[in-house]
Amino acid sequence: MNRDMSPDEFREHAHKAVDWIADYLRDIRQYPVVPNVEPGDLIAALPTSGPEQGEPMDRIFADFQRQILPAVTHWNHPNFHAYFAISASGPGILAEMLMTALDINGMLWKSSPAATELEQVTLDWLRQWLGLPDKQFGIIYDTASISTMHAIAAARERADPRCRTEGSTPNLVMYCSEHAHSSNEKGAISIGVGKNNVRKVPMDLEFRMRADVLRQMVEQDVAAGKKPFCVVSAIGTTATTACDPTAEIAQIAKEYGMWLHVDAAYAGPAAICEEFRPLFDGWELADSIVVNPHKWFATPVDLSVFYTRHPDILRRAYSLVPDYLVTAEDSKVVNHMDYGVQLGRRFRALKLWFVMRYFGRDTLAAMIRDHCQWAREIGDRALLDGRFEIGAPIPFSLVCLRLKGPDEKTFALIDHVNRSGKAFLSPTALNGKTYFRLAIGNIKTTREDIENTWNTILQAANL
Amino acid sequence: MNRDMSPDEFREHAHKAVDWIADYLRDIRQYPVVPNVEPGDLIAALPTSGPEQGEPMDRIFADFQRQILPAVTHWNHPNFHAYFAISASGPGILAEMLMTALDINGMLWKSSPAATELEQVTLDWLRQWLGLPDKQFGIIYDTASISTMHAIAAARERADPRCRTEGSTPNLVMYCSEHAHSSNEKGAISIGVGKNNVRKVPMDLEFRMRADVLRQMVEQDVAAGKKPFCVVSAIGTTATTACDPTAEIAQIAKEYGMWLHVDAAYAGPAAICEEFRPLFDGWELADSIVVNPHKWFATPVDLSVFYTRHPDILRRAYSLVPDYLVTAEDSKVVNHMDYGVQLGRRFRALKLWFVMRYFGRDTLAAMIRDHCQWAREIGDRALLDGRFEIGAPIPFSLVCLRLKGPDEKTFALIDHVNRSGKAFLSPTALNGKTYFRLAIGNIKTTREDIENTWNTILQAANL
Repeated sequence: MNRDMSPDEFREHAHKAVDWIADYLRDIRQYPVVPNVEPGDLIAALPTSGPEQGEPMDRIFADFQRQILPAVTHWNHPNFHAYFAISASGPGILAEMLMTALDINGMLWKSSPAATELEQVTLDWLRQWLGLPDKQFGIIYDTASISTMHAIAAARERADPRCRTEGSTPNLVMYCSEHAHSSNEKGAISIGVGKNNVRKVPMDLEFRMRADVLRQMVEQDVAAGKKPFCVVSAIGTTATTACDPTAEIAQIAKEYGMWLHVDAAYAGPAAICEEFRPLFDGWELADSIVVNPHKWFATPVDLSVFYTRHPDILRRAYSLVPDYLVTAEDSKVVNHMDYGVQLGRRFRALKLWFVMRYFGRDTLAAMIRDHCQWAREIGDRALLDGRFEIGAPIPFSLVCLRLKGPDEKTFALIDHVNRSGKAFLSPTALNGKTYFRLAIGNIKTTREDIENTWNTILQAANL
Repeated sequence: MNRDMSPDEFREHAHKAVDWIADYLRDIRQYPVVPNVEPGDLIAALPTSGPEQGEPMDRIFADFQRQILPAVTHWNHPNFHAYFAISASGPGILAEMLMTALDINGMLWKSSPAATELEQVTLDWLRQWLGLPDKQFGIIYDTASISTMHAIAAARERADPRCRTEGSTPNLVMYCSEHAHSSNEKGAISIGVGKNNVRKVPMDLEFRMRADVLRQMVEQDVAAGKKPFCVVSAIGTTATTACDPTAEIAQIAKEYGMWLHVDAAYAGPAAICEEFRPLFDGWELADSIVVNPHKWFATPVDLSVFYTRHPDILRRAYSLVPDYLVTAEDSKVVNHMDYGVQLGRRFRALKLWFVMRYFGRDTLAAMIRDHCQWAREIGDRALLDGRFEIGAPIPFSLVCLRLKGPDEKTFALIDHVNRSGKAFLSPTALNGKTYFRLAIGNIKTTREDIENTWNTILQAANL
């Protein structure tokens, strides 16, 4: 017998869920961004065992509202500024609803032609918007961490093709700046390159990688018998959104035969605006690039885009085809499973397609311009106020500020703001001092929301 | 300004989407399981560039139905039998809708207490249903491929703790059967162990790993100066759902200090039924286990559950905490980012919670019993028919059959069935001969659906 919920029962509850979601999106500013709960509160409130018999959906949905929701940190809140802000936009949510009902695993072309081909189409649209040359192979992964791990693995495959069969060789070294995202180091640990073989290149006063020092470090490593195989240039670091000098790094990468991976996971979407293009100078020379539409492009998590000019190398690193995954079309199509660790792949392209079509390039570009403008305005106000220090330039939509004086004042400010429920900030350390990060990136955020955040910060500063 | 779709506009379109989904679930048997499209058809039908200005949602949704849907392979169809069948059940879809609207990234406890704690609660419920001892740490990953890669990485961390800093050592070797899933080998390649260091242990006549041969291979490797560090026991292989002798393998793993990983990605849920427990004998001794609720547990992709008795080792392999991810609660909570490559984590526990509560253990167990019963019945009919050969025993819900005679007859049968749109089968090779795989696993599948699949197969056999 069919033991699933009946289509009629689904219809009834799904309409209720939609009304709840629409109300949630309308009333989202009434929720505290950070919940007022202690560790273990939710665990203590829930039963210690699952039910033997099924329960009515109304009860489950009521418990969702009563028990789960009060323990949720509202990432979709316009005043979520702690990490790079993200947004589940309306069209993105609609696409996720449809994706989920279809439940596709796009591992092979055959296992869903629509998933495979729409991924190729949307990523080529995005490539054009970003101003990248047309020799790019695009693929969607779940997270930037996975995209970056694949970049390092492809770099290794090129530098040491024996690795696939024999295992990692110990003399490979890679480079990134001191502020590169932890996923670079984690990827290197994961694939067996080792933490000690990730060189952290010092930065200039504006937190950009010192290309001249990179060159010296590479030369030293070569002289010591090491093999430099990969360098990561960040366009928009996590701590400050600094942009490494990608064109200069690309030149060094070329000279020494290193794979150049560009981490533009957060800032990448800004390249759809011409005026931000100079910050991306040189990324067209990269061997691989990661851009996350699930950060600053109104697309719900998870959707990380990876471009590479060397799909053959990525494929060589990862392709393994067992009998039961051989299909008649293999010679004519792209089978995405050949380009990564994961066999299972959700139909993520659908949400990128909905988002790009519904908003169009103009609206997404206008959103990015607003966010960057508001971030600069916050910087200006902080300077005028006199009590704040700015930690770094503001090339994009992140501001790093601190209260003058001991770090405790800034920690207290962050704590006060976060406890107020009105906004969510996170700390970071720059030159040994603590700053708070205020990131703007939700498509629902308005200038008034930013006013409110700033007022909340001022109230905290006045304490 | 807020450039998102307004809550009212979202409400309108989301209600339409719900009606479409409910109709789709009701009428799903009217769709061809495999679409009748050629490579490139969809690409050719879509514009070569994205729109500068936004488009109305009605037009996008119409194009979804008109252009995308005809190129979809319907994984959620009750007659999808090619790969392990999966199901986006009603409660699973409802939970995904809510998850998407919340757009949570559960990397830290602080970044969403609900995501972190509900994950702990639901995985403990599942552990109890599966009959596993209580010393298990559970975590949700996206896919079994990632779960398995983490298992191998944790095994490496235990065998060679210097690897995290220095990189992989070349003398590590791991073991799995000739029929182990390709993700084991891919995981080993990815983390730098190397394909040649994955030993494929021969199988007995029923495709189970020969534990005695495993022992000999391990002894040979030790004598040759290699370090056996990991062995994978499959409970339910992909090709035939054979069950390796996990208890015997566990004994060998213990003697030689190897990490035992149990791959029960597909078959794991059957352990909620007492009568299947003997096939799982010994998995309670495993160092890690993977079970995928997104396969045979009515949960939409993606949701892969990983259990380990050694969370400390997994954490040692992967934890890296940059400044901006330090929180005041770190000493009191689990931060899931510490246990894997990925920083980003969707709120997947919500769908497991909805599914477990809505169906209860009884319904899910009854579904699994039905599926296994129907698979055995297909096997019996095939034998009675006289034209078919059965490739392997049927411990769970997969049948491997072929037409007697040359492989071409079986390939033609598969092709005929798949082109009919009435069912989807996949080929596999056993002992040098081609079989078709018929997997049952969708909660919507009925006995009548299986009758229809069998009749479609008979029609193809009659040609």
